[in-house]
Amino acid sequence: MASLIRDLAAATPEMLEAFGDHALVRAALAFESALARAEAAEGLITDAQAKAVADACARPLDVAELAAAAAHAGTLAIPLVQGLKSTAPKAHMGATSQDVADTALMLQAKAGLALIERDTRKLSSALADLAQAHAATPMLGRTLLQPALPISFGLKAANWLSLVDGAARRLRREAEESLALQFGGAVGTRSGLQGKGEAVAARMAAELGLASPPAPWHSRRDAVAGLGGALAILVGALGKLALDLSLMGQGEVAEAFEPRQEGRGSSSAMAHKRNPTGCQVALSAALRAPHLAATIIAALPQEHERGLGGWQVEGPVIAELFGLAHGALAALVPVFEGLEVDPARMAANLAEAGVGSDIGEAEQLTARALSAWRDQETG
Amino acid sequence: MASLIRDLAAATPEMLEAFGDHALVRAALAFESALARAEAAEGLITDAQAKAVADACARPLDVAELAAAAAHAGTLAIPLVQGLKSTAPKAHMGATSQDVADTALMLQAKAGLALIERDTRKLSSALADLAQAHAATPMLGRTLLQPALPISFGLKAANWLSLVDGAARRLRREAEESLALQFGGAVGTRSGLQGKGEAVAARMAAELGLASPPAPWHSRRDAVAGLGGALAILVGALGKLALDLSLMGQGEVAEAFEPRQEGRGSSSAMAHKRNPTGCQVALSAALRAPHLAATIIAALPQEHERGLGGWQVEGPVIAELFGLAHGALAALVPVFEGLEVDPARMAANLAEAGVGSDIGEAEQLTARALSAWRDQETG
Amino acid sequence: MASLIRDLAAATPEMLEAFGDHALVRAALAFESALARAEAAEGLITDAQAKAVADACARPLDVAELAAAAAHAGTLAIPLVQGLKSTAPKAHMGATSQDVADTALMLQAKAGLALIERDTRKLSSALADLAQAHAATPMLGRTLLQPALPISFGLKAANWLSLVDGAARRLRREAEESLALQFGGAVGTRSGLQGKGEAVAARMAAELGLASPPAPWHSRRDAVAGLGGALAILVGALGKLALDLSLMGQGEVAEAFEPRQEGRGSSSAMAHKRNPTGCQVALSAALRAPHLAATIIAALPQEHERGLGGWQVEGPVIAELFGLAHGALAALVPVFEGLEVDPARMAANLAEAGVGSDIGEAEQLTARALSAWRDQETG
Amino acid sequence: MASLIRDLAAATPEMLEAFGDHALVRAALAFESALARAEAAEGLITDAQAKAVADACARPLDVAELAAAAAHAGTLAIPLVQGLKSTAPKAHMGATSQDVADTALMLQAKAGLALIERDTRKLSSALADLAQAHAATPMLGRTLLQPALPISFGLKAANWLSLVDGAARRLRREAEESLALQFGGAVGTRSGLQGKGEAVAARMAAELGLASPPAPWHSRRDAVAGLGGALAILVGALGKLALDLSLMGQGEVAEAFEPRQEGRGSSSAMAHKRNPTGCQVALSAALRAPHLAATIIAALPQEHERGLGGWQVEGPVIAELFGLAHGALAALVPVFEGLEVDPARMAANLAEAGVGSDIGEAEQLTARALSAWRDQETG
Repeated sequence: MASLIRDLAAATPEMLEAFGDHALVRAALAFESALARAEAAEGLITDAQAKAVADACARPLDVAELAAAAAHAGTLAIPLVQGLKSTAPKAHMGATSQDVADTALMLQAKAGLALIERDTRKLSSALADLAQAHAATPMLGRTLLQPALPISFGLKAANWLSLVDGAARRLRREAEESLALQFGGAVGTRSGLQGKGEAVAARMAAELGLASPPAPWHSRRDAVAGLGGALAILVGALGKLALDLSLMGQGEVAEAFEPRQEGRGSSSAMAHKRNPTGCQVALSAALRAPHLAATIIAALPQEHERGLGGWQVEGPVIAELFGLAHGALAALVPVFEGLEVDPARMAANLAEAGVGSDIGEAEQLTARALSAWRDQETG
Repeated sequence: MASLIRDLAAATPEMLEAFGDHALVRAALAFESALARAEAAEGLITDAQAKAVADACARPLDVAELAAAAAHAGTLAIPLVQGLKSTAPKAHMGATSQDVADTALMLQAKAGLALIERDTRKLSSALADLAQAHAATPMLGRTLLQPALPISFGLKAANWLSLVDGAARRLRREAEESLALQFGGAVGTRSGLQGKGEAVAARMAAELGLASPPAPWHSRRDAVAGLGGALAILVGALGKLALDLSLMGQGEVAEAFEPRQEGRGSSSAMAHKRNPTGCQVALSAALRAPHLAATIIAALPQEHERGLGGWQVEGPVIAELFGLAHGALAALVPVFEGLEVDPARMAANLAEAGVGSDIGEAEQLTARALSAWRDQETG
Repeated sequence: MASLIRDLAAATPEMLEAFGDHALVRAALAFESALARAEAAEGLITDAQAKAVADACARPLDVAELAAAAAHAGTLAIPLVQGLKSTAPKAHMGATSQDVADTALMLQAKAGLALIERDTRKLSSALADLAQAHAATPMLGRTLLQPALPISFGLKAANWLSLVDGAARRLRREAEESLALQFGGAVGTRSGLQGKGEAVAARMAAELGLASPPAPWHSRRDAVAGLGGALAILVGALGKLALDLSLMGQGEVAEAFEPRQEGRGSSSAMAHKRNPTGCQVALSAALRAPHLAATIIAALPQEHERGLGGWQVEGPVIAELFGLAHGALAALVPVFEGLEVDPARMAANLAEAGVGSDIGEAEQLTARALSAWRDQETG
Repeated sequence: MASLIRDLAAATPEMLEAFGDHALVRAALAFESALARAEAAEGLITDAQAKAVADACARPLDVAELAAAAAHAGTLAIPLVQGLKSTAPKAHMGATSQDVADTALMLQAKAGLALIERDTRKLSSALADLAQAHAATPMLGRTLLQPALPISFGLKAANWLSLVDGAARRLRREAEESLALQFGGAVGTRSGLQGKGEAVAARMAAELGLASPPAPWHSRRDAVAGLGGALAILVGALGKLALDLSLMGQGEVAEAFEPRQEGRGSSSAMAHKRNPTGCQVALSAALRAPHLAATIIAALPQEHERGLGGWQVEGPVIAELFGLAHGALAALVPVFEGLEVDPARMAANLAEAGVGSDIGEAEQLTARALSAWRDQETG
């Protein structure tokens, strides 16, 4: 929906741009011109015909007008291809609207993943610094929201690091599965291409920087669902960090705080307040993302060679998941980069609990987590 | 997220406007000026002070700028109230940001419900016409996707009507519970109002056209959850209609079809196709809405006097539910108003199944459903 | 699944019994004998034939064997009815398996609701006592997990009370809609009953203590979805109570605690611990229930006259929601009946926050909430 | 919940056993005896002390009594360990209840995965046979539930195969991440083990046949969420097969059917019916699983060193996902092994649609999918 003000959690300008209408149209046109080039290279159309398609794709478009036409037609491809064909009759040859939509979504997802990757690195780096600096800083471990036994704050940060890292690795694995060209034609048989469908697909994939899957995946949506699940798990991992930190920042606990930022986290009614606004964004995202992942998994049973309803939910919901994931990351990066830690208060709370000071193998566990993370970063 | 092209299902221009940033700011300013007027009427501020607030609320605002400031502050109220106070120091007295946000959401919900109410009526009326016209038109009843025994198409339509009607009544009931003023101040105690909080609230509610609840509901979110659930159930009901119709429109069944609309439902690869685009929109919405309802229900356990994360999900998710509900309705109204029904094919399919022609009490049941609906419409 | 040990949250013995296989078979047999009696009263079968059905229904059954036969057949009605017909050939006349299953589910739901109603009363009563006793007990109000301004503990309890009460009222409303007889025959036309279907249905409903709906609801599942949603909202409300209390019971806050129970809430590793086990049960339930509600809402688009897959999810999922709701209630009733409150610590935490002591209209708001609740209880 | 009759979809006897209380207690005792042996091997306790633990673990237990005690205590470990300690005081040394519960869950998951793996192989093999046999059997491809262009039935089956295969590979990947020993002690520091925690963990993992993770994962639950997501995606993939088949089996389409099984899929009201009961089970599972996956993802933000509520949902919900996955698989294996295919009707429906007979590269795509699957099976 259209309220940027209300939906503070779901948006960074970068991600909004990556999944915006302009990027979508750009990706759809990239598909069409790559298709024409590949078909020319395979001798299915002439170079001049391919050139006509490329020229048509380069023409400026009124995106708002296109959006209205797409809403009426039920799909973007209809008005887009109609426009191209007016000057380039060979445009879209052998393709179907789903080929365009799926490939465009994956091109946008690739851009979105780069943003997430970049900011996950920043966050992990900040967490590693905290783990390193506080490997032996004692604090109270808490289970079931009750005082338990001592840990070190570094171990807590190391566990955060390993969690974010595990979630990021899953996302990378799922991206490898899912960031693939879609090209199967109307029903996934690649008919009308004189048996050269596979060769055309390989050329297109190479040009677009996507994987060339063994076959069209128009009716196999597991990889999209896997991507959605991995995004939601990353958001949930960020939610864990935010929850821990917001609990540590309670007035009576007061062990760590978001850094002060002029004008952020204040209150319209109470001048003394310092709200954990970064945590709030991540916690909101963590409440929303699981259900969006469920939506995409629920859409898996799609009818026959292209589903009615199920297929159409993937795009907007994947886009929303990217938005939530990057929104949460972007909110937490400065929080953990500038985290205010109060080791004295940690020590005081620990002493008050009266559970001794034995932190067991906390330092070794912290060191091991740090070293595992560094190995992977450099490896 | 920002792609109108991709998210064809979730948007009617009317609903996008009702939940857009401009409407949100307008509603927030309506809250602030109603508050000032009520406080003046109760003698808590002077008329001149109230006038200053009203004047400040009437000044034009740069909504995009405000959105950026809200994202930084973590809430709309901070920059909005700051702006008002520059010329109207008594603005927002006794209120908190949640008061503004909750009340604004409910004002927007009220506008959204009017749209849904209007189009539910149109749909019900179209369904009633079908039920009436086909009360005795025999067709094959199908259970578990297998041929069962005869029904009439009118009875099928009557069941659709009763379903939509039941969902609409639930939504009305939940709206009565939820469309209420929020006014409790920072922690819901209405402090700083010299004991006149209740009187102020009653005046505000009357002016804003909302219910005046017995107490602030800042920490009791069941009514919001009920509203979200009712919206999702309405969408699910529409999904049932769309599913039945899309199954009836399969090539091998061919009993009923969406009306032809120039340029709608065609295919980028197959000129002969006639896709059920209206059903597609409703089915997509029906896949997405349940999870959004779950999100709002999952947000119920909100911490203490205002939650961190949970509270903040309600606004955008409720807005999305309104979008899906109205998108689905708007897609189905013309479909059922112009439905192409083929009684001959119905009869042929029924004969082919070889299950006789006894439609039992189908006509009486149809008549009863129609009469129940009419009673209520006029009652 | 079958692990009682693992699934501590989802079970009270009473609710397990109410939704167990024995209760299900009993309800199915009640349907069959009520059907026969009603058909005899309407002259569709003889009294002797009805007596034969009643006798057959009274014979002892091997429930485990029946369960295996039902799993093979795909529905309980097949083996059950087959058994009855061996001595009572008129059994099940005019009915279909869905009639039995839906009606049995509603009979079980009725029993389940009585348990929830009983324990909601107990919980509300305990909350009312707390609200009354602590109407003026000052404590720190907290928003966004940060210290805010003073409230009274009584007002907090009053808000809990109003929340539980609102959720209970919604559940009652939805029960009125949903606790209805299902009787439509194979495709909802009541064929084969010589036009007396409505009269038979009215007699059956009266005997079984269910509402007699205007028409069969085999293809209209909105009321079941409404029931599921209302159960989940109740669980979410209980989750809010549990979350607040578990936060108040943190070591550094220490304002209120679950009562000590020998052997409950201790730790296998730490003798000093006192875990909030009642809150744990309610919080677990609150995490699970929203998604179960979403499942039932997602099942609304059921194909034609009986769905394939969607219809079949309702029974087990509704049963699970009843289990979670009653499990959470049963866990919280003793917690709030025996709550240990520490007003001195509340005062100390409030003083530490340095936000004064003005509790505004907290006492009046508490009184109003109590009086609203009492009016309704007696009304 | 306890109704086996109602919950036909969620249970195979094998999986109920794998996740039953007896298996859980067995796994918990395996943890305790492995712990004692490992601690003896590392010199932390004597061999005699370890022997006493092993003997205590070998004693017969009353599982029902233990279940009741666990419900009261809030966790299984309390009564279980208490029992062991009466004769083996060194039992459970250095461990906490979460170590037992998490490790036991993973041991049960390992058993569950073996069942799923076995039956996925069977299903894939049946699908490969269909793909092979019908690589060139023409049929109508359908998109958006409308007639589109020709495909071969073999290509459809090959896409089913690739889908199931992709889902099974994801599940294997996630199992590798998640099937790991948990051993961290009360707060994950492995205190009280004289620095030998890592060595003890390695020995235990080897004995129990689980991975030895770099560190305790008590507060990092991403792998459990990944497992849940992968199970739900597998179920969704099975749902796609079931949906396609149930649509093909509609009376008017009649292209393929579940094999006839005496007494399965018949109707209590209509002797002619032949219901797709296997598909029904899989479709029900596919409606339920996404929300269960969402539940586990939603539980990721767990407080501090062990969560309150979130952690406790994982066990029962993972168990339910295993039940649904295996229930759906077990239902579909015989369906596809004995599938009745009607190529003549496929040809007739295709001819009726009037869309020619060009199946493009369907045979090559089918061959490629088969070869990819075979390579992997043998690789």
